[in-house]
Amino acid sequence: MYKLVLIRHGESTWNLENRFTGWTDVDLTPTGVEQAKQAGRLLKAEGYEFDVAYTSVLKRAVWTLWHALDQMDRTWLPVINSWRLNERHYGGLQGLNKAETAKQYGDAQVLVWRRSYDVPPPPLEATDPRSERGDLRYAKLDPKDVPLTECLKDTVARVLPYWNSELAPAIKSGKRVLIAAHGNSIRALVKYLDNISDDDIVGLNIPNGIPLVYELDADLKPIKSYYLGDAEAAAKAAAAVANQGKA
Amino acid sequence: MYKLVLIRHGESTWNLENRFTGWTDVDLTPTGVEQAKQAGRLLKAEGYEFDVAYTSVLKRAVWTLWHALDQMDRTWLPVINSWRLNERHYGGLQGLNKAETAKQYGDAQVLVWRRSYDVPPPPLEATDPRSERGDLRYAKLDPKDVPLTECLKDTVARVLPYWNSELAPAIKSGKRVLIAAHGNSIRALVKYLDNISDDDIVGLNIPNGIPLVYELDADLKPIKSYYLGDAEAAAKAAAAVANQGKA
Repeated sequence: MYKLVLIRHGESTWNLENRFTGWTDVDLTPTGVEQAKQAGRLLKAEGYEFDVAYTSVLKRAVWTLWHALDQMDRTWLPVINSWRLNERHYGGLQGLNKAETAKQYGDAQVLVWRRSYDVPPPPLEATDPRSERGDLRYAKLDPKDVPLTECLKDTVARVLPYWNSELAPAIKSGKRVLIAAHGNSIRALVKYLDNISDDDIVGLNIPNGIPLVYELDADLKPIKSYYLGDAEAAAKAAAAVANQGKA
Repeated sequence: MYKLVLIRHGESTWNLENRFTGWTDVDLTPTGVEQAKQAGRLLKAEGYEFDVAYTSVLKRAVWTLWHALDQMDRTWLPVINSWRLNERHYGGLQGLNKAETAKQYGDAQVLVWRRSYDVPPPPLEATDPRSERGDLRYAKLDPKDVPLTECLKDTVARVLPYWNSELAPAIKSGKRVLIAAHGNSIRALVKYLDNISDDDIVGLNIPNGIPLVYELDADLKPIKSYYLGDAEAAAKAAAAVANQGKA
């Protein structure tokens, strides 16, 4: 049996400002830093050990991992960054306030953009200053891999190859894997692992900074999964995420 | 022509308490954090870019790197940790106050232990709680590679294989390399690069948190080297390191 631990980054400045973030590289808030440290303290208290950690190329996830590793006294663990673990790209919505967008377009349209499986928000123009053009961290990628917007289906389509090529082989080789990532890249993994339908994934929310443990069998099928720590706190935090998009 | 940048970690809690640290895994002080950030700001202001960063498995170097990378907006760069970049192991002196040790043994003996090339401090007993026995980060090493004390010659002997196997090939492949390490692992590299004699290396001190730039030719021979920023500040900081061991 294998264990895999997923952590969504702590609260970011744009979570706090209730803005669509996507690939915009914003910092953690002081609350987010504390959530990340608390995740590390929980993992340490429960005796978790890891051999390798994965995260995205966005600093809210990187710093969440770093703070958690520090609390575990494991700052020396190998860390592998991949753009494939990035948050869903929010296209033209990036930077807009969620509540204001909801007022303008209506709760229903925003819920579609936030939680539909296959309807992407309006794309960024390639010349938009918010696009990734000229960003060194994506410079070596095939341009077709760098999105201008994504629906969750698109996010799943670029997360799963990484699961298959890197994460699953690492786990099967016996490495204990920790992943610090984002609401939607984690939803992509959870959808795949738990075989959740395109409809049902809409209602699933990942709270910030609470370790989500998967116990996996030899074929990496989930035996069970649970949040570490206070279950009620995790449920409340997930509900808060669900309510962010409402006017 | 290649560029290589070396940074000694910022001030640690035991630098501040004037204690021999070695492989003891102590934190940065708030001053050390600020030094690390300042190193990153300097590198960013001077337009430095890197493809990969190396550091030790000791958190004062790891955090120095992390804070510097954050200031450069490069938290996503690949980071490789190696015990071979660790500080010199200070054996039985680890944890002792430098000034008190100097009072007890005399300035001359402490200077020998601190700055002679081939006289190691008294070794730790293998059963000493200060030893690395049971420390997961060293668990997979050949036990003969895990020191109980080191003179600088010993440190050179375990840093250079890493230069030859990992660092030099990375630089020659065109990767721009940043290394955040320790006073003596950096002295080992400087001694090798600048072909400094066993006698002269005794008088060379590396200041905390100031980027040291090497411009290297096609054979990785130094063309020139310099500290970034205020040269006088770098000289003062190096002199302060030299004075730490005096009663």
